[in-house]
Amino acid sequence: MIIVMKKDAGKEALAEVKKRVRDLGYKAHVIHGEARDVIGAVGDERGKAVLQSLESLPCVEAVVPILKPYKLASREIRPEPSVFELAPGVTVGGRELLVMAGPCSVEGEEQLLETARAVKAAGARVLRGGAFKPRTSPYAFQGMEEEGLKLLAAAREATGLPIVTEVVNPRDVDLVARYADILQVGARNVQNFPLLRLLGQQDKPVLLKRGMATTIQEFLMSAEYILSEGNQRVVLCERGIRTFETATRNTLDLSAVPVLKEQTHLPVVIDPSHATGHASLVPSMCYAAVAAGCDGLLVEVHNHPETASCDGPQSLTPAGFAAVMDKLRRFAAAADRDL
Amino acid sequence: MIIVMKKDAGKEALAEVKKRVRDLGYKAHVIHGEARDVIGAVGDERGKAVLQSLESLPCVEAVVPILKPYKLASREIRPEPSVFELAPGVTVGGRELLVMAGPCSVEGEEQLLETARAVKAAGARVLRGGAFKPRTSPYAFQGMEEEGLKLLAAAREATGLPIVTEVVNPRDVDLVARYADILQVGARNVQNFPLLRLLGQQDKPVLLKRGMATTIQEFLMSAEYILSEGNQRVVLCERGIRTFETATRNTLDLSAVPVLKEQTHLPVVIDPSHATGHASLVPSMCYAAVAAGCDGLLVEVHNHPETASCDGPQSLTPAGFAAVMDKLRRFAAAADRDL
Amino acid sequence: MIIVMKKDAGKEALAEVKKRVRDLGYKAHVIHGEARDVIGAVGDERGKAVLQSLESLPCVEAVVPILKPYKLASREIRPEPSVFELAPGVTVGGRELLVMAGPCSVEGEEQLLETARAVKAAGARVLRGGAFKPRTSPYAFQGMEEEGLKLLAAAREATGLPIVTEVVNPRDVDLVARYADILQVGARNVQNFPLLRLLGQQDKPVLLKRGMATTIQEFLMSAEYILSEGNQRVVLCERGIRTFETATRNTLDLSAVPVLKEQTHLPVVIDPSHATGHASLVPSMCYAAVAAGCDGLLVEVHNHPETASCDGPQSLTPAGFAAVMDKLRRFAAAADRDL
Amino acid sequence: MIIVMKKDAGKEALAEVKKRVRDLGYKAHVIHGEARDVIGAVGDERGKAVLQSLESLPCVEAVVPILKPYKLASREIRPEPSVFELAPGVTVGGRELLVMAGPCSVEGEEQLLETARAVKAAGARVLRGGAFKPRTSPYAFQGMEEEGLKLLAAAREATGLPIVTEVVNPRDVDLVARYADILQVGARNVQNFPLLRLLGQQDKPVLLKRGMATTIQEFLMSAEYILSEGNQRVVLCERGIRTFETATRNTLDLSAVPVLKEQTHLPVVIDPSHATGHASLVPSMCYAAVAAGCDGLLVEVHNHPETASCDGPQSLTPAGFAAVMDKLRRFAAAADRDL
Repeated sequence: MIIVMKKDAGKEALAEVKKRVRDLGYKAHVIHGEARDVIGAVGDERGKAVLQSLESLPCVEAVVPILKPYKLASREIRPEPSVFELAPGVTVGGRELLVMAGPCSVEGEEQLLETARAVKAAGARVLRGGAFKPRTSPYAFQGMEEEGLKLLAAAREATGLPIVTEVVNPRDVDLVARYADILQVGARNVQNFPLLRLLGQQDKPVLLKRGMATTIQEFLMSAEYILSEGNQRVVLCERGIRTFETATRNTLDLSAVPVLKEQTHLPVVIDPSHATGHASLVPSMCYAAVAAGCDGLLVEVHNHPETASCDGPQSLTPAGFAAVMDKLRRFAAAADRDL
Repeated sequence: MIIVMKKDAGKEALAEVKKRVRDLGYKAHVIHGEARDVIGAVGDERGKAVLQSLESLPCVEAVVPILKPYKLASREIRPEPSVFELAPGVTVGGRELLVMAGPCSVEGEEQLLETARAVKAAGARVLRGGAFKPRTSPYAFQGMEEEGLKLLAAAREATGLPIVTEVVNPRDVDLVARYADILQVGARNVQNFPLLRLLGQQDKPVLLKRGMATTIQEFLMSAEYILSEGNQRVVLCERGIRTFETATRNTLDLSAVPVLKEQTHLPVVIDPSHATGHASLVPSMCYAAVAAGCDGLLVEVHNHPETASCDGPQSLTPAGFAAVMDKLRRFAAAADRDL
Repeated sequence: MIIVMKKDAGKEALAEVKKRVRDLGYKAHVIHGEARDVIGAVGDERGKAVLQSLESLPCVEAVVPILKPYKLASREIRPEPSVFELAPGVTVGGRELLVMAGPCSVEGEEQLLETARAVKAAGARVLRGGAFKPRTSPYAFQGMEEEGLKLLAAAREATGLPIVTEVVNPRDVDLVARYADILQVGARNVQNFPLLRLLGQQDKPVLLKRGMATTIQEFLMSAEYILSEGNQRVVLCERGIRTFETATRNTLDLSAVPVLKEQTHLPVVIDPSHATGHASLVPSMCYAAVAAGCDGLLVEVHNHPETASCDGPQSLTPAGFAAVMDKLRRFAAAADRDL
Repeated sequence: MIIVMKKDAGKEALAEVKKRVRDLGYKAHVIHGEARDVIGAVGDERGKAVLQSLESLPCVEAVVPILKPYKLASREIRPEPSVFELAPGVTVGGRELLVMAGPCSVEGEEQLLETARAVKAAGARVLRGGAFKPRTSPYAFQGMEEEGLKLLAAAREATGLPIVTEVVNPRDVDLVARYADILQVGARNVQNFPLLRLLGQQDKPVLLKRGMATTIQEFLMSAEYILSEGNQRVVLCERGIRTFETATRNTLDLSAVPVLKEQTHLPVVIDPSHATGHASLVPSMCYAAVAAGCDGLLVEVHNHPETASCDGPQSLTPAGFAAVMDKLRRFAAAADRDL
């Protein structure tokens, strides 16, 4: 931490702050500047918010952190990218791109199975589908719950595709884990810390979505919650952040891909469907995501988008998805990835 | 809903969309415009996302909602402001301003009791203090949990102040409700729908904080989750939204007060501490909040901010809080409110 | 500046960066941290972007500024608030609150005069009105230009109110200055540096509006452009920033008032009309602004808002404005201000 | 426009609003809804803000526009993409990708020439370089002005590359146009309407940058200012928008590419340098931009970034740029574009 003193703080104040820094277990190193003094607090600053509270002293102008606050997620701990299995034969983080596709929510057997077969035929490696749906309105369709999980399991039987599905309540973690291969944390739950802790104790990989207003640093701190409980299989998913722009549902932050790749060893996938909110924008964002260096995609596909009970406008048709996959192969090759 | 057709959509497409609108149980009313046609879908559009999915038809440009999606929270259902008791003798929503104050987190008996006595002496009517702390970092102090709840209950014994404290896990709702008078939902949990549903089944009032990236409409939808389960005692709390500005921790959206007052009957309070992040900015935001027409304040006070294990920079000292309360009385009077 | 070295940067890299810092005219002061080293560059860092460019060295992780980049606008240069005359007998920055009111744009003699008389009767001290209108659409009404300036001058004759009006083109500065008492820079021109420089050479006070995406620090840098050319009479105007919230036209950042008051000696006024975009929200934001400690208000008033050629929805009627002024007196008194 | 009446607005109010709509020259078409009535105002709503002012009537809840407000920029006017020459032999909007590269600011003959030769050798088709620099601080380097323009012209002589450079003052348009091939409008001037009008009267193509807080619709309205004055050669440039994220200088909005491609026929290029602010993030954003379907790139290259007087941290070295161009060819081929 760098502690910036106020311009008119005198020698006594400086001595007092130095003493407090030392009392908190840090070395205090003073730089006398032209306009003001600063104190470098040397020591591991992570996990000690108290140093930040020195900002409430009248003689202190600001306390500026220098170290990144995450550890296990960082490249400094693990310089090489993490590559791991999500299900037998399906890995993420390596040369092969991971495409996960399926409907926003499970609505029925025929809808799911028809969509699952179509996405598999087009080259998807994982089936997505929501059984527990966090909806803005209490009057909206909330998902088929366990019934939906059973349909997902049946679709896995039928297609061989492992399934990723969201868990929204700590209470349901065990239930969902009984059916799902990959446990998804939605954008609204990115800082649902009790949920993250429980997922950190599971033996299943976790797909963690960035929240609408989550900085990349906070996003990595949320991953750190899972990692610090012992579960090292975390896949990060950028799905658009909230900005002033209304032409898209959210603003897809593709520069998060190289930023994350610099800072963490965890794999990064992109959800262009929730990011843009419009099916017509999804294909170009799939190509761009792969060109940006992501490790995979999460795409909404519905056999009849115009009747979808949720997020129809952003869902590709099976034919649309197949066309995207065809063209995506060219970009994957350009990026030295296999699809 | 207003369904806007594309410019070159022909008669057949129009007829097809009209049919679909009717099949979904709405009346379809067409306006032929100069540049394009629009269809008004007449019926209760709330709770039916399927209408929105018509946007995925190639002939439809956009589907624009007209009705507000919330019901029970709206002024249309209940034109008069809600006034209710939070604890015996402590009401919100009426002429009396409600000031809730105390430390960000409960750290120990002396800290809590000393602070509680001070805020009571200065005129606070409710004691705040966190026992379960949702922290960005897994390595940061996470709260004293049940031990903290016990200290809060002891402070209530000692001072007579009812207590408000946060619940972050659906699992803990019953536990927290055994100790607390008012159950707080933090900004990160504003769309933790399983938690909201459970709180809707409690017989205790709920203090619901707006999220960092929650629109006012979404905020009211979250309140609607609680109301629709039967609990009518919801207090809304604006605590700053996330913007590009970094001079403050968040940007306090005080215009949310008159907007909410137009749209809902629920009481509205302001948290200037989390909004600004700096104790020196808190007093003027307290005055402004009351002038804007809010029903109360939630203010962080700590007996020794510079040693606080959480949010020290934004905490007032007891003396600072007393000075704010003194001056606040003048603004309360100007706003025809009692303090 | 604090130069943060990368974790694995060796001794040679450190020596190289130290040398470069010294070559740029700074003293280099190293702190050896546990995880990485940092170099404090001691000297006046303002005006030297080159130091920042050291960030492009492979061994440097980040370059973090410590000093605020503005000088003349800062409290460190001038600890007391600036109080100055805008026109004979009309001051800003002192005990008296300054209320400026009038239509968004000058539309005709009757409209302007009727409105001017009404706002004067209600207590406004300055008449506002746009003759050059920066409009998002090239097809929208662009203002009456010099004809409008003449009408403003006539309204000043008739009422005695000095006038504030916007200048959007450096070419027009002299023209507008011939008519206006106060020269307004609109939000879209907050970083129109050639315009700011010219206004810095004028002998008339400048009302500088914050841009929709301007940080407080950038806002003060724009004021610094004017001050550094010699014109010390700059009034800062917060008028809402752009955020994700759509219930209001912009989000009024009232916490900017105390932040600015801490950092600068310049007077601060609030424009609640553009901030909220809805007349019904304007009154409470006027009261809140005064309670927050601002030095004045800029309010849109139109004698017939529903026929306004610009910004009708956010304009108060004369009667509405008079009612606001009446109630505002109570808040002014509570804030120890005269109205 | 759709005019939404308030819930309790009676028949008389409805009749009154219908009359006003007709008096403004529109047809009024009423839909009686279950909860409220709406009026469709049929006619060309562009350029008539008065209709919006009906929102100030007490019986009106909202006025919702249906038509896009731009004309000449729209796909509806010109369904095919615009393809045009920027300089002899250099076109934009067609199959060939346009790469513009060079330093942020012209600093001297050697710097410019060395960089120009390097970017040409790597495949750039246009040389960029700022002579008039809009800088946040009045104390920062403001550009070499006409001297810089002369150096740019000399670099064109030496390399054959046409030059793009920024104009920040309407007064300088003729001066800059004498030297430059393409006139650039910077992000801060995207709503400098007098400047846009003048550029609309020039016979040189214009590179228009999106502002930090400019919606896509407003961006197209700014283009419309230029088009409506007669200059049809406008190139749109997305360069990042301002959001809460601080890991990057701005947030590159790559989904703006497909959105713009749907709405306008104008070519779209991407500036990954200003968007990200860090050279290490630029390569992947170049690849992603091309995959997203853009027509070209604007990239900062400096022969010695660590000594740059402006934006060093985001500048590629010549070697770095050459490596990007090499790999970019693969993505261009995947996107069916030539480079």
